[in-house]
Amino acid sequence: MTHYSEEMNQLKDAVLAMASHAESAVSRSLRALVDRDDALALQVQADDNTIDQFEIQVDDLALQLLTKAPLATDLRFITVAMKISQNLERVGDEACSIARRAHDLNAEPQLKPYIDLPRMAQMALEMLRNALTAFVERKPDLARNVIPRDKEVDDLNRQLHRELSSYMVERPTTITRCLHLMVISKCLERIADHATNIAEEVVYLYEAKDIRHSDLKKE
Amino acid sequence: MTHYSEEMNQLKDAVLAMASHAESAVSRSLRALVDRDDALALQVQADDNTIDQFEIQVDDLALQLLTKAPLATDLRFITVAMKISQNLERVGDEACSIARRAHDLNAEPQLKPYIDLPRMAQMALEMLRNALTAFVERKPDLARNVIPRDKEVDDLNRQLHRELSSYMVERPTTITRCLHLMVISKCLERIADHATNIAEEVVYLYEAKDIRHSDLKKE
Repeated sequence: MTHYSEEMNQLKDAVLAMASHAESAVSRSLRALVDRDDALALQVQADDNTIDQFEIQVDDLALQLLTKAPLATDLRFITVAMKISQNLERVGDEACSIARRAHDLNAEPQLKPYIDLPRMAQMALEMLRNALTAFVERKPDLARNVIPRDKEVDDLNRQLHRELSSYMVERPTTITRCLHLMVISKCLERIADHATNIAEEVVYLYEAKDIRHSDLKKE
Repeated sequence: MTHYSEEMNQLKDAVLAMASHAESAVSRSLRALVDRDDALALQVQADDNTIDQFEIQVDDLALQLLTKAPLATDLRFITVAMKISQNLERVGDEACSIARRAHDLNAEPQLKPYIDLPRMAQMALEMLRNALTAFVERKPDLARNVIPRDKEVDDLNRQLHRELSSYMVERPTTITRCLHLMVISKCLERIADHATNIAEEVVYLYEAKDIRHSDLKKE
């Protein structure tokens, strides 16, 4: 039994370590954009491998634990850990996409100062952090508060998309750069989606109520 | 034991039914685009709810089965079923995005006949179908063959992206329509990604070898 609860802690720690790598990838990809730092953009892409390895490690730990006929509540915790890890892996992928686009953008003059993108990144990262804290500290309320914030990030993405579209029409020479910025904005919106998915799983885990695909997120 | 194997079959059937809904959503969203059929586009969006409900059903069945201390091989099958279901749910979301963009495009004159997008859709759907067949018929080789095809879809997406970018620069009045087409192309690329994820899980399931994040997919 001691061994078993030790393994449960290992699983939790692996998810947390993975989350901190994923968060760092997102903030560094944004810094690569804002500071026009090519080396950092390349580093984010190189480090994605570490996040991928964490996904395999989380799965291995989870499968080991599942063979030990865990209690029903632990069982849910374990499967939620696997799902969180799948979401974090994709957060890492989005950070890589951002880094790639930052690298492309650094080869051309900057269009204008970036204000909305860092703001979106900050919101998405805060959502991610709260969803993970809710997971490890058993705080379904904290997770529940993450969910409606997804709409704010969606709105910002839509607004930026509209602005960039008009800008492209007015100045066709900026089209390539605007497209890169649209992709980055979409990546951040997807990171917020992953944070929301995680938050929904955490509410489900601790309140035993399935709120995925409910109308809560549309409120 | 009979009851247990009955439940395993229920799980398999639920995943298959979910897959057939997801595939149908993708092909209908493309038909809505090509035939400029608004009613069909709206229908795809309305039907997404069904796919979402399947995800909850698959999870419930999987969790029930996990409480029965399954054999190690069944245990892997069950967790893979949960992961496949998560991917299928996202395929459904991508089909909705395609349908939304098709609806927007139908409000304006068509740019040119769609050739590449239906081709990409066909490839992505075939990948999805083969990955699922490999899952239910225990055919890791079939799943393994899906993986390198992802690169073909990626290449088509990149090529179309380039073509549309140039087109936008030449004719700024087409920018909005080109952006919709870029999003649709990206959605199809993501559907192929989900098919690849499923295929990798199936290889792992039946060959007990983790090929996620290996170089196989880059070959």
